[in-house]
Amino acid sequence: MKNIYLTDIEVMGKLARVQFSNTLPGPKPISLIGTLSLDGQTNLAPFSTVTHLGSNPALIGLVSRPDMVDRHTLSNILETRCYTINHVHSGILDQAHHCSARYPRETSEFTATGLTPHFEPGIAAPFVAESRFRFALDLVETIPINANDTILIVGKVRLVQLPEEHLAADGSVDLTAIGSLASTALDTYFELSQPTRLPYAKAKNTL
Amino acid sequence: MKNIYLTDIEVMGKLARVQFSNTLPGPKPISLIGTLSLDGQTNLAPFSTVTHLGSNPALIGLVSRPDMVDRHTLSNILETRCYTINHVHSGILDQAHHCSARYPRETSEFTATGLTPHFEPGIAAPFVAESRFRFALDLVETIPINANDTILIVGKVRLVQLPEEHLAADGSVDLTAIGSLASTALDTYFELSQPTRLPYAKAKNTL
Repeated sequence: MKNIYLTDIEVMGKLARVQFSNTLPGPKPISLIGTLSLDGQTNLAPFSTVTHLGSNPALIGLVSRPDMVDRHTLSNILETRCYTINHVHSGILDQAHHCSARYPRETSEFTATGLTPHFEPGIAAPFVAESRFRFALDLVETIPINANDTILIVGKVRLVQLPEEHLAADGSVDLTAIGSLASTALDTYFELSQPTRLPYAKAKNTL
Repeated sequence: MKNIYLTDIEVMGKLARVQFSNTLPGPKPISLIGTLSLDGQTNLAPFSTVTHLGSNPALIGLVSRPDMVDRHTLSNILETRCYTINHVHSGILDQAHHCSARYPRETSEFTATGLTPHFEPGIAAPFVAESRFRFALDLVETIPINANDTILIVGKVRLVQLPEEHLAADGSVDLTAIGSLASTALDTYFELSQPTRLPYAKAKNTL
């Protein structure tokens, strides 16, 4: 095993340091966050920091950096208190990845990439019509992470949309059939394969 | 597409609601968190909430619920301010999943599952010897998430260990070769396949 200490990471070039640090969590989700500005401009941005926070109510976390290309996402969420999370599958991967480019505020990533906005009554933020597993959230709170000035956005799930045949009665969703991708680093995506489902773990008698 | 509203989630049975809510982020990482109590007891617990927060320094987030089986993890981290994150591969999946069972505090999950603790000089928390990609962190801060009384644990990476042949000069790590698994819900795990690496995205001329 190779040892890489904090000081080794600090002296990496910036791109290598960012690439390496972003591999540390292992496989990450990859979703497009859909938002609308108060003046009606749609926005889409890829995020890999979507995290389950709770189930009752269903709460989801999302980490945003104030100084990055996703700043339109954060400002739109603060303005409208509403956003969507749209899973990415291989059929829209190129477009999803391209939403990370630095478009000016007046350019919608929907227009730039050819993805289709889909609206539902009473929900300001656009869904991605091509996504097969997507949900809308209401902003609950934003929490500053002082260590590096990032922000944890906490949202409550309002509406989930997915193909009925991929939802089981026990609450499981077939991510392999839906085709949701995983990601790592800044630029690498994976298909999910060979799902293994294990029974609820009970303590063994270790005496 | 099937519509599932907040009220539909609220009336699910508890297990279905937890299972369903935990699928919403899509593919999640799955790691074993290694800790040591002040009285020298090792602990291992599976977490799927490991999130990249920053690269300079390398900061990683981890969400803990105060009222769950992972409470030994949280109390140990608060006591020693040190913990390890160990990727799970298929060769240790059964043992890793079994670390979620409710063992009493005096039982080490290492002993109960047969995984091997590995210590490095100056680092209190145990690594999992069988893990192929693992790192130790120093606690930076814990941040309360008031919406549901969970806690975001923020750590700074101190030492990363991985096979040298799977780390490229540009900072990329070959997660497929390492065999790191993804997870969803509470009980389902995936292999990563068909990696796709895309070039840095630049804004297209949309005029």
